[in-house]
Amino acid sequence: MKKLSFLDTAFLLSETRETPMHVGGVSLYTLPSGANEREFLHGLADNLRNVREFLPPFGDRLKTGPLGLVGNVYWEPDPALDIDYHIRHSALPKPGRYRELFNLVSRLHGTLLDRNRPLWEIHLIEGLQKRQFAVYTKTHHAAVDGARSIHLARSMLSSSPRARLHESPLSLQAWETYRATLGREHRAHLSDKELRNVAEVLKAQFDTASNVYGALKHFSEAWLGRGGALMLPFLKVPRSSLNTSVDGARRFVAQSWPFARIRAVGKAFDGTFNDAVLAMCAGALRMYLEKHAELPTESLKAMVPVSIRQEGDIDSSNAVAAISADLATNVRDPIKRIGKIQASVRAGRDFYRDMSPAQTQFISTLLQSPGLVLIPLGLTSKLPPFNTVISNVPGIQQRMYWNGARLDGSYPVSIVTDGIAVNITMVTNDKNVDFGIIACRRSVPQVQRLIDYMEDALVELENAAGLASPKKKPSRKTVTRKKTPVRPKRAAGKTTR
Amino acid sequence: MKKLSFLDTAFLLSETRETPMHVGGVSLYTLPSGANEREFLHGLADNLRNVREFLPPFGDRLKTGPLGLVGNVYWEPDPALDIDYHIRHSALPKPGRYRELFNLVSRLHGTLLDRNRPLWEIHLIEGLQKRQFAVYTKTHHAAVDGARSIHLARSMLSSSPRARLHESPLSLQAWETYRATLGREHRAHLSDKELRNVAEVLKAQFDTASNVYGALKHFSEAWLGRGGALMLPFLKVPRSSLNTSVDGARRFVAQSWPFARIRAVGKAFDGTFNDAVLAMCAGALRMYLEKHAELPTESLKAMVPVSIRQEGDIDSSNAVAAISADLATNVRDPIKRIGKIQASVRAGRDFYRDMSPAQTQFISTLLQSPGLVLIPLGLTSKLPPFNTVISNVPGIQQRMYWNGARLDGSYPVSIVTDGIAVNITMVTNDKNVDFGIIACRRSVPQVQRLIDYMEDALVELENAAGLASPKKKPSRKTVTRKKTPVRPKRAAGKTTR
Repeated sequence: MKKLSFLDTAFLLSETRETPMHVGGVSLYTLPSGANEREFLHGLADNLRNVREFLPPFGDRLKTGPLGLVGNVYWEPDPALDIDYHIRHSALPKPGRYRELFNLVSRLHGTLLDRNRPLWEIHLIEGLQKRQFAVYTKTHHAAVDGARSIHLARSMLSSSPRARLHESPLSLQAWETYRATLGREHRAHLSDKELRNVAEVLKAQFDTASNVYGALKHFSEAWLGRGGALMLPFLKVPRSSLNTSVDGARRFVAQSWPFARIRAVGKAFDGTFNDAVLAMCAGALRMYLEKHAELPTESLKAMVPVSIRQEGDIDSSNAVAAISADLATNVRDPIKRIGKIQASVRAGRDFYRDMSPAQTQFISTLLQSPGLVLIPLGLTSKLPPFNTVISNVPGIQQRMYWNGARLDGSYPVSIVTDGIAVNITMVTNDKNVDFGIIACRRSVPQVQRLIDYMEDALVELENAAGLASPKKKPSRKTVTRKKTPVRPKRAAGKTTR
Repeated sequence: MKKLSFLDTAFLLSETRETPMHVGGVSLYTLPSGANEREFLHGLADNLRNVREFLPPFGDRLKTGPLGLVGNVYWEPDPALDIDYHIRHSALPKPGRYRELFNLVSRLHGTLLDRNRPLWEIHLIEGLQKRQFAVYTKTHHAAVDGARSIHLARSMLSSSPRARLHESPLSLQAWETYRATLGREHRAHLSDKELRNVAEVLKAQFDTASNVYGALKHFSEAWLGRGGALMLPFLKVPRSSLNTSVDGARRFVAQSWPFARIRAVGKAFDGTFNDAVLAMCAGALRMYLEKHAELPTESLKAMVPVSIRQEGDIDSSNAVAAISADLATNVRDPIKRIGKIQASVRAGRDFYRDMSPAQTQFISTLLQSPGLVLIPLGLTSKLPPFNTVISNVPGIQQRMYWNGARLDGSYPVSIVTDGIAVNITMVTNDKNVDFGIIACRRSVPQVQRLIDYMEDALVELENAAGLASPKKKPSRKTVTRKKTPVRPKRAAGKTTR
């Protein structure tokens, strides 16, 4: 039996009915030509079920002692694993637009995983238009972190439409095959395990979990008031409807943009792709709050992962540190706004410069786990350390296939917690950037408008930079506004709006 | 603001992730000829949404004070009721058999209602074969009890296929219209409110809820060892896989049988329709446990509602008392088995004979609420007072329509709790009896076999009584065994197996 790490257990401890601590993803695929949808999806399910030995902890359930989650928690093999419980067929009501898909994903993401079983579900979803189908996965954050789940998703994909899987991607054997194919450059960085060990080491210096929290609190307070343009947690973040308590229901929307289009904006402002993403989100959040007549006079702050080993691309696999970035939502001029964002991100990187890798990883882990650390600190809803999370997950920058089905988009479905009612996470996928936005259904009733505002904000930035926005197609635009306010881009590398 | 009764609050207090305390129902309808499925279902949703003032508590959410659920709990109007959260469109994956419907219902029934909102959901489900559609409703037991939900279902139905609803059946106005059409005979019995007041009166004699539980415990213990053939709670019930702790996942199956066929068996044995239902379930449970090599040497006991005002029919609206009936599952001979069941039911009725109506109602309410009273008593999984629940809900014995759609079946989806992992509830509907079986997914993995065994047990009883079983159709039988092990009967009054 493997013992859960301190951090993994904390995800279980901090979970409530209102704030489930699972992470998800929605992937869109196009059926291979000639394939029958039902037969193809049942073939995929058969392949997923074909497991001799599970990749841990996909075959394990939680085991606690007399102290429950406060004591030691272990993974133990589920003696009667019910694979049909975990692999599910679902369907969309007609007309099977992305709107219906997002409704279903919102509902599925709002329910708790069953703690008596392995903490994952995979939903194969039929009924989309134009020979597409969708896959929604849901895994507890105590079982799999973001990096692991991306690797897992990769392990089942191939750049060849003719490649076929034999072992289930959930099996240990498939995982080992995948690991063997990874290049050496991936091994140079701190592993997932090493990352979590930092917290374990800290914990070993204290006798109880509450002492660890006490230490973390002092650790955080030590940074108050420092850093110039750097925005640190617990410091100067305004309140808005994005920072209320959340309930258990969710709203999910998603959309793709061409990677080249966003990167061009970054370059035009002498910055990075990540700067442009932040400016695009900042513009959209400003429009949203302005429309709802509650734009705070102070700027919103976002927790953002940044690349600290190499200057430049955020979309490489070593983007391990996180900062709280100033989104400059109180600045009307888009050029001044992106400038302020860039200064804030630069200060964030400098903050990490003199730290040891272990310190960097640890602070970064804290910042990426708001529900984990901030809830026990009792600070989450009283003094939000940031107003939202804007997170970038490196994907695969080429066209990929799952047993011959073309991957058209891969949208993260993350976590919201008290005080942080919106999370924007994106994956670079083929020639696109796939944005997934998850929000508390009650706090952010019109989250689908954020998608429209993000396009508007991108156009605003393009205009300010003197770049030509892609030609809009009026007929599609009309459809988008009236019938499908949210709509991922389907084909890669082609601008639909 | 209306205060919740003691019993209603207890349903909230006893609810856990593993034992949700909501009740549900699945109704099957056939689309009016010529109607487009999508348009028709959206029309029904529009009608459901058309509420000026909600029938309480459908527009209300829970409000607690500083003591939480242990203190006073009130219903308060939800200031931002989000009707699209409650009225949902869903769809079945292909091929859209009842198997896919039951899978979906099992999943929907296994998730908790959101306590920050009014405690109900309605799912309009498309994608069934042969122009059918389904409606799954889910309501917290703290908000609506069985009698109320049946009345609510009735209020939207009409015996005329041409009748159309204007007000939503969830509206106060529709409810009042419906109340006005009820005949006087319905008013002669104790109302739902009076029923619940019995517990309130009891509570008024004590200062705290825990004293009430103490009193109940003494009250229950007073009956130990009494009653001859009468099986009382906490007395002589064997353990089986049907009486383990349950987890949060469910399995639901359903099937219809002709009312006349079951009643004929009852008459042949000089008994009631209810006797025949119990014998049918008893035979099926015996077969199931025998097949799993765990048939206890002692007989299983079932909590059963019985009619105590009038001898005879269980399917009248005054079947208000409940007894723990001996199912004689340790008796091989079907004639002896039904005889023993009948003796047990008769003794159960006699038990109530000398009681005041208030006493009758109170004990009956206790017996019908295992999760409510037995969990605080700490007795549920240690000493199961009965092994299962077999419950009969009076329905409408004629063909009914909802806005022109013909009601083909109406299957209750009830509650399982620790110690009682299977619940069989049935509704008399038109010329059929519609059985809904809900079970813990882990404890009772092959619950769909119970449906087959119920048919086998009915045939066994028919043979023993010298009645001719309906001719089996071999082709359909094959399909049933191989492809659709669970399948409600579609057309009323026609035997499909």
